[in-house]
Amino acid sequence: MLGLDPGSHHTGYAVVEPGSRPNDFRLLAAGTIHAPAKKPLNTRLLAIFEKLTQIIGRTSPVEMAVEGIFTYKNARTALILGHARGVALLASSLSGLEVFEYTPTSVKKALVGNGRATKEQVRAMTIQILGKPLDLGLDATDALALAITHLNTRKINAMLERCK
Amino acid sequence: MLGLDPGSHHTGYAVVEPGSRPNDFRLLAAGTIHAPAKKPLNTRLLAIFEKLTQIIGRTSPVEMAVEGIFTYKNARTALILGHARGVALLASSLSGLEVFEYTPTSVKKALVGNGRATKEQVRAMTIQILGKPLDLGLDATDALALAITHLNTRKINAMLERCK
Repeated sequence: MLGLDPGSHHTGYAVVEPGSRPNDFRLLAAGTIHAPAKKPLNTRLLAIFEKLTQIIGRTSPVEMAVEGIFTYKNARTALILGHARGVALLASSLSGLEVFEYTPTSVKKALVGNGRATKEQVRAMTIQILGKPLDLGLDATDALALAITHLNTRKINAMLERCK
Repeated sequence: MLGLDPGSHHTGYAVVEPGSRPNDFRLLAAGTIHAPAKKPLNTRLLAIFEKLTQIIGRTSPVEMAVEGIFTYKNARTALILGHARGVALLASSLSGLEVFEYTPTSVKKALVGNGRATKEQVRAMTIQILGKPLDLGLDATDALALAITHLNTRKINAMLERCK
């Protein structure tokens, strides 16, 4: 299960597999893809695509969780972010991953219990859930939060299905 | 020389080679890539990428001209357009094409002589320059206009270089 927080400069990623018990996760890989600074956008997109394709190839996730599209105040920022997000979606589709989208609010609510939690609070909670110290930046912990939210959502849905 | 007008639903393309005289062009391919309507964005992006890669493979351009990034009023539209543009830039970079950007105003000015020309006026002028009737949509003629603008800009720059 790949969680991804795409950006034209920094793309956070986390590959997590579910354990047998609730909130039991195995972290296969996590980090931040840094696109080469000061290079043109198409060079940065190529770097994101190649590194993400390598990570997918190495860890073989079958699903991806990414933030759902929401509206930005700044159209120029949205346009640039769209480039990185498009390339990330393409890398996943080319590798056959199924894509799931979650709003930032639903991720924060699922993890911290508060839809307005800060990135630092989300980070602290992901570390607590995994039960070990992690030397990861905020982009990577955002990606990790997406992966955990998706895996927990699937578990809850499966439990609800059994109760029907 | 590939001219491209990317969009998440319709992507216009035109592959043009320069002739020996000014305004003498050979049209190798032109048309519109229609991403499958009503399909999720990642499926549409995959279709754009695969068709564009096929066109590049078939016609072997070494350069691409695309509209420069400019600010949109609507951030959501800009975000979605960014996805398609990102995938188009990636397809070009993966095939080794050098990317050149032109603002819509500079294309209109170069072709029609008026930076505020309509898409229909641009279309009429591209058809007149090529000297034959073309059954192409507005996305494709926009792409054709970008290709012609780039080739003419290169010719003019080469002439200026010789006059130094």
